[in-house]
Amino acid sequence: MTSARSITRVLANKYSPSGAPSLDNFKVMSAPAPTKDSLKENQVLVRSLYLSVDPYQRGRLIGTTNSYVPRYELNKPISNHGVAVVEASASADVAEGDIVYIRGAPWETKSVVDVAAVRKLPTGTIDNARDFVTVFGMPSFTAFVGLTTIGKPKAGETILVSSASGAVGQIVVQLAKARGLRVVGVAGSEDKIELVKSIGADTAFNYKTSDNFVASIKQAAPEGIDIYFDNVGGEFLDAALANINTGARIVSCGMISQYNAKSADEAYGLKNTFNILTKTATFQGILVGKYYGTPTEDEFMAEVGKLYKEGKLQYRIDETTGLENAPQAILNLFDGKNFGKSVVKV
Amino acid sequence: MTSARSITRVLANKYSPSGAPSLDNFKVMSAPAPTKDSLKENQVLVRSLYLSVDPYQRGRLIGTTNSYVPRYELNKPISNHGVAVVEASASADVAEGDIVYIRGAPWETKSVVDVAAVRKLPTGTIDNARDFVTVFGMPSFTAFVGLTTIGKPKAGETILVSSASGAVGQIVVQLAKARGLRVVGVAGSEDKIELVKSIGADTAFNYKTSDNFVASIKQAAPEGIDIYFDNVGGEFLDAALANINTGARIVSCGMISQYNAKSADEAYGLKNTFNILTKTATFQGILVGKYYGTPTEDEFMAEVGKLYKEGKLQYRIDETTGLENAPQAILNLFDGKNFGKSVVKV
Repeated sequence: MTSARSITRVLANKYSPSGAPSLDNFKVMSAPAPTKDSLKENQVLVRSLYLSVDPYQRGRLIGTTNSYVPRYELNKPISNHGVAVVEASASADVAEGDIVYIRGAPWETKSVVDVAAVRKLPTGTIDNARDFVTVFGMPSFTAFVGLTTIGKPKAGETILVSSASGAVGQIVVQLAKARGLRVVGVAGSEDKIELVKSIGADTAFNYKTSDNFVASIKQAAPEGIDIYFDNVGGEFLDAALANINTGARIVSCGMISQYNAKSADEAYGLKNTFNILTKTATFQGILVGKYYGTPTEDEFMAEVGKLYKEGKLQYRIDETTGLENAPQAILNLFDGKNFGKSVVKV
Repeated sequence: MTSARSITRVLANKYSPSGAPSLDNFKVMSAPAPTKDSLKENQVLVRSLYLSVDPYQRGRLIGTTNSYVPRYELNKPISNHGVAVVEASASADVAEGDIVYIRGAPWETKSVVDVAAVRKLPTGTIDNARDFVTVFGMPSFTAFVGLTTIGKPKAGETILVSSASGAVGQIVVQLAKARGLRVVGVAGSEDKIELVKSIGADTAFNYKTSDNFVASIKQAAPEGIDIYFDNVGGEFLDAALANINTGARIVSCGMISQYNAKSADEAYGLKNTFNILTKTATFQGILVGKYYGTPTEDEFMAEVGKLYKEGKLQYRIDETTGLENAPQAILNLFDGKNFGKSVVKV
């Protein structure tokens, strides 16, 4: 429990490089609350409001060392994108009461962070603070970057989106629809399929009730796939490759079906990569990080902001209350128990 | 045998969509020679000099229907890029004695072709007519297009090239070296390895004597692979994926190891595509056709022409004499029996 004098922290407890993440990877503990007296120059004391929970954290948790993001340091707080309120500031840039966006926000109810890591959000943001880790958050930006820089969508084309009710997929579905594509969504429950259709997919199917992914995709998109936005990898990706058109783009954003493979040997072997060659297709991994602070971010805020303001963009959120429940919220991502963008209300 | 009154033709005899190509796919026959009297307007009568023999012809031969190139028509001549001399012309654009390059040259000792399919080569070309289906041929252009448009090479990077002694590989090795990359070549015999080193690869190894592709690549390129120019697919591609650096580009130019798989089920399953995601890599198939007649072709002729003229570009050629031996020359490509760019001297 957290009182005025104590805080809750979620630390990296141990790695499990050859195994799936579990509650053992985390240590939830309480600690004395940091005070404004301890602030050094250019530091701020913040109280966490919302923290983003995202699949990419898996590698950092289990201790992967060959990824573009470093693993979490043991006995240090887990971190991720978050929104917080400033309680005290030793910087001229932000003041008490400001709402800030934090890249690499520590999973603590209160933290001392460098001002360099925070970005002040518009005044009055308190009512929609959550938007900055949801509809305007990193997964949404990832959707935008992947769709525009790799997918290069053209009106009239067909896009297939897996995990279409997820944090990234929901945005891909709606942006693609707004740009005039035919959208085929895939998800893992009837509730999710209903959501995917309600936000604009032309058709959607439940992969869990399909006994033949290749045939299910062909049925949903007899005209073939021009863009596949892949959040799952493995067998479904292979089936998508069997259905691509000449010049197709495969946006590799996640491979959640493969995250818990213990080794390359256990990974699903893709059989249909021959089509990358014969269909002169492109299969590319997204790196969203390098687009922050570029014109692409402004385009994202403009396009998504406009649709959202006009009520034309919906975003299903799976909110967990209490920082102490954040570890389970991460684990839920890997067996599809979340429904929509996962976020923790601290 | 061919006399003044008869010609040799190589026709498509039958398809074998579920099997490897064999001599059964071809029918070698003689036929009456076409005469200049039979020419219609804008047709030319040509005598074939050299015909290119390339792996991509496999799909056309066995009757693949889902590729970007159509299958050969049964009982019509096989065709491919070729160089010929004009014997008679019913076009103002070319004259008797001109040396011409033909896209889709019929595999006949003499043919009637539309003038639209021919491009007149510079006067005096007779002495180096072969160059236009070898060092300046389609595989060389493919090497250039793949390296520059997908590989995007930067000096100091490391490139891995499979089939490095082949029609495409030899050019990739030399262009990459000329652009300041570290070049690692791979081929299937000691003779080929020697050639690959002699044309400038920093190191090269024989995959047939490797018992662990991942380890062999790592040993040859401990710094990791920035560009993999893939001509083989399958297990070697998988091993290359295990060795890529962040931001790597995989140029998919051929998958000769997989061409004889009877179905997707028999295809090698790629296990390491997870690295496409985590290394934010690009894996893209080349389509050379769309670059003909663009500035990229001029850049190719300038860069390759300059190196060749200065004696800085070597090109090993595997020449077969006699059109009747062309079917076996194709088949040799699929078990590595050729050494260098395969061409038929008609």
